[in-house]
Amino acid sequence: MATKITPISGFPELLPRERFAEQHVLDVVRRTFELHGYAGIETRAVEPVERLVGKGGDADKEIYAVSRLAGGEDARDASLGLHFDLTVPFARYVLENAGKLDFPFRRYQIQKSWRGERPQEGRFREFTQADIDVVDIGSLPAHFEAEMPIVLAEIFEQLPVGDFRVRCNNRKIPQGFYLGIGLTDIVTTLRIVDKLDKVGAAGVRAMLVEAGATAQQAEQCLALAEISTADGGFVDQVRALGVDHPLLQEGLQTLAEVMSAASAATRPGRVVADLSVARGLDYYTGTVYETQLVGFESWGSVAGGGRYDALASDGATTYPGVGISVGITRLVQLLIARRGLTTTRSTPSAVLVAVTDDAGRPRSAAVATALRARGIPCEVAPKADRFGKQIRYADRRGIPYVWFPGTGDDDGDQVKDIRSGAQVPAQAQTWTCPDEDLRPALRTD
Amino acid sequence: MATKITPISGFPELLPRERFAEQHVLDVVRRTFELHGYAGIETRAVEPVERLVGKGGDADKEIYAVSRLAGGEDARDASLGLHFDLTVPFARYVLENAGKLDFPFRRYQIQKSWRGERPQEGRFREFTQADIDVVDIGSLPAHFEAEMPIVLAEIFEQLPVGDFRVRCNNRKIPQGFYLGIGLTDIVTTLRIVDKLDKVGAAGVRAMLVEAGATAQQAEQCLALAEISTADGGFVDQVRALGVDHPLLQEGLQTLAEVMSAASAATRPGRVVADLSVARGLDYYTGTVYETQLVGFESWGSVAGGGRYDALASDGATTYPGVGISVGITRLVQLLIARRGLTTTRSTPSAVLVAVTDDAGRPRSAAVATALRARGIPCEVAPKADRFGKQIRYADRRGIPYVWFPGTGDDDGDQVKDIRSGAQVPAQAQTWTCPDEDLRPALRTD
Repeated sequence: MATKITPISGFPELLPRERFAEQHVLDVVRRTFELHGYAGIETRAVEPVERLVGKGGDADKEIYAVSRLAGGEDARDASLGLHFDLTVPFARYVLENAGKLDFPFRRYQIQKSWRGERPQEGRFREFTQADIDVVDIGSLPAHFEAEMPIVLAEIFEQLPVGDFRVRCNNRKIPQGFYLGIGLTDIVTTLRIVDKLDKVGAAGVRAMLVEAGATAQQAEQCLALAEISTADGGFVDQVRALGVDHPLLQEGLQTLAEVMSAASAATRPGRVVADLSVARGLDYYTGTVYETQLVGFESWGSVAGGGRYDALASDGATTYPGVGISVGITRLVQLLIARRGLTTTRSTPSAVLVAVTDDAGRPRSAAVATALRARGIPCEVAPKADRFGKQIRYADRRGIPYVWFPGTGDDDGDQVKDIRSGAQVPAQAQTWTCPDEDLRPALRTD
Repeated sequence: MATKITPISGFPELLPRERFAEQHVLDVVRRTFELHGYAGIETRAVEPVERLVGKGGDADKEIYAVSRLAGGEDARDASLGLHFDLTVPFARYVLENAGKLDFPFRRYQIQKSWRGERPQEGRFREFTQADIDVVDIGSLPAHFEAEMPIVLAEIFEQLPVGDFRVRCNNRKIPQGFYLGIGLTDIVTTLRIVDKLDKVGAAGVRAMLVEAGATAQQAEQCLALAEISTADGGFVDQVRALGVDHPLLQEGLQTLAEVMSAASAATRPGRVVADLSVARGLDYYTGTVYETQLVGFESWGSVAGGGRYDALASDGATTYPGVGISVGITRLVQLLIARRGLTTTRSTPSAVLVAVTDDAGRPRSAAVATALRARGIPCEVAPKADRFGKQIRYADRRGIPYVWFPGTGDDDGDQVKDIRSGAQVPAQAQTWTCPDEDLRPALRTD
């Protein structure tokens, strides 16, 4: 153990209290996914390198290759790399198992990915993502696009993130609108309008004109991007711009249905139609999603996704779908760093069973066994120290209750809530504590 | 997607029904660990290679090195490898965070590891392990050694594994015994006796004599290894062999306490004292554990561990501890392959909400929202097909209930248990199903 121990940049690790907070987030996400009928799968950490290259935009040089340290032929032939997202492995999984899956296939996947990018705030080399997708064979009804913002809103309602916005757009709206005003280079136009937050309206206007738009076309693009409504009101606002195109109408209708479904299932204002949302220019073809925490917009999107026409194709069959991804590590690390996210204790134990003397340890162990049988996490004190010291052991860890087993000569067992100091007689077969004491609770500043 | 898709040997993946079974196992393990007051942590997937080399016995050449595919200096300097177990990273984590942890530190860790060994039944290159350890600073009381077989027994009682044995020994028993009969090469003797299952008593006898033991010494070694009792009876059987040594007495006392604690907290016969258990010759110093499934002993141990004197040391301080590891992937893959482990459905959905016609989709979505709000996983049918087809959608996935929203012109909502065919009126705000229908249930052949 002579090696000096230093953290590895970009590979975050958590202390127990913070890990409890992360686990809580993961539990909320998983439960929500399952309530919506998504089946969990996991894919292996590695894919053949040739399957990873060219799939992640600029990510090729960020791929981590894996090879046997001292292998012979086997190592050289391997050509494996760690996956850098969950989409590439999911696409491969669908193709590999197509004959054994039920379509439309609703799956969730909560796993780590690795990306050798430069570590910075909110960017990690090892990070956990939580994805859901619905994919079907050949075609996928648009109503699935309405599910995603509802799932996102349900997740964030359960987390200590304060106010948030799930912002939705439909790729067909700007696309049809641009065509309707005579701009045919859709991708370039989208790319410029996407810089609105960074360079402002004047900057976008100048860039659009430079790219060949007239001043009036540029104004119209800006007017579209500035539309944002918490209900279906965006439809009339777009129509008031006086542009018509079949794609535009299609996009407006689908997004109106998304907003209508969201308004029936989520709190007002959480899901908004925001026609400036761009996202994944070359991949998404319908509704797109982003999620910002209000007051922390500079963090960027903590969850997003969209509708795509081809997750994968084996030539004969394509698999269209719609999906979202929650950046768990990014979210949790930012909540820890900026909001002091932690938990009330460093152990799952709700009760520390004290030990009166070494001979009494079996009696304490019996209390612990009885409590556990009723779902109460607990541990037995490591030493038969004086009770003050045993109470301090619990206090340091945030364990709320200390149990004192009776000795036979006294009035029986007692349990102390060390937060209030209240101590009452108790029996291990019947005692209960409030549900919120059963597990560590989240705390933020 | 021109690459031909083939599984990668040693990197198993599961279909949804099997993954539910694995997830169930993981949930049982985690819940049990938490009931016993172990705090969950995760460590990064990579360690500096020099920290991995030499720590895994013969495993050096099985280490997977990780490097940036197209990195410059950064990639060359990295020298990272994927961890091959959870002990090496845990030891590093303890040293790195010693000042921030509460000792004795009780932690669990459920993560994947990677080992480039030759894939074969029960051996994988990517596999999940579930570990607990209690580590302390300087010294650790022996009573912690009694916790481990209880945790193991509780886990396996909850899994569909049939009868099982948690076999315990104490390293000090053979060690003291061998010294007591005049054999001083402890490791060689242990190594030979450990072959008892493979080569039989005659083989062990011959090898011991060849290694320098007298015929009588060899007989005594065999007599010790053959002792196995489901209670504290082993103590008298060892004493009847007429050998005395302080280490032997110490080992007998600790193992007797382990068995006494186990008998108070587990079903009779699950935890046994078995003086032939060897395990990790150069690492463990006290109680050692193995777990076999009865009738499947050839699978080897599916969970084990032991007491060690030094998880890690920074020179000034050593961290002794005791721990166990459950081989999740091995266990689950074997249960799938040999016992047909699966689950009753391929989705978490307990209810499929049918769709009467496209205009009625919002009404179906409202039913789903109401059910989810009460913790009932469900999904809305993808298409407004005729009901027979929607029922088949549910049936194919094993979804037990189909919900028919009322149209306003009829008597209101109805729900059908498609297993029995029974159909009853129901309201989304009040309807419940039996708890066991809320999630997929395990099935074995």
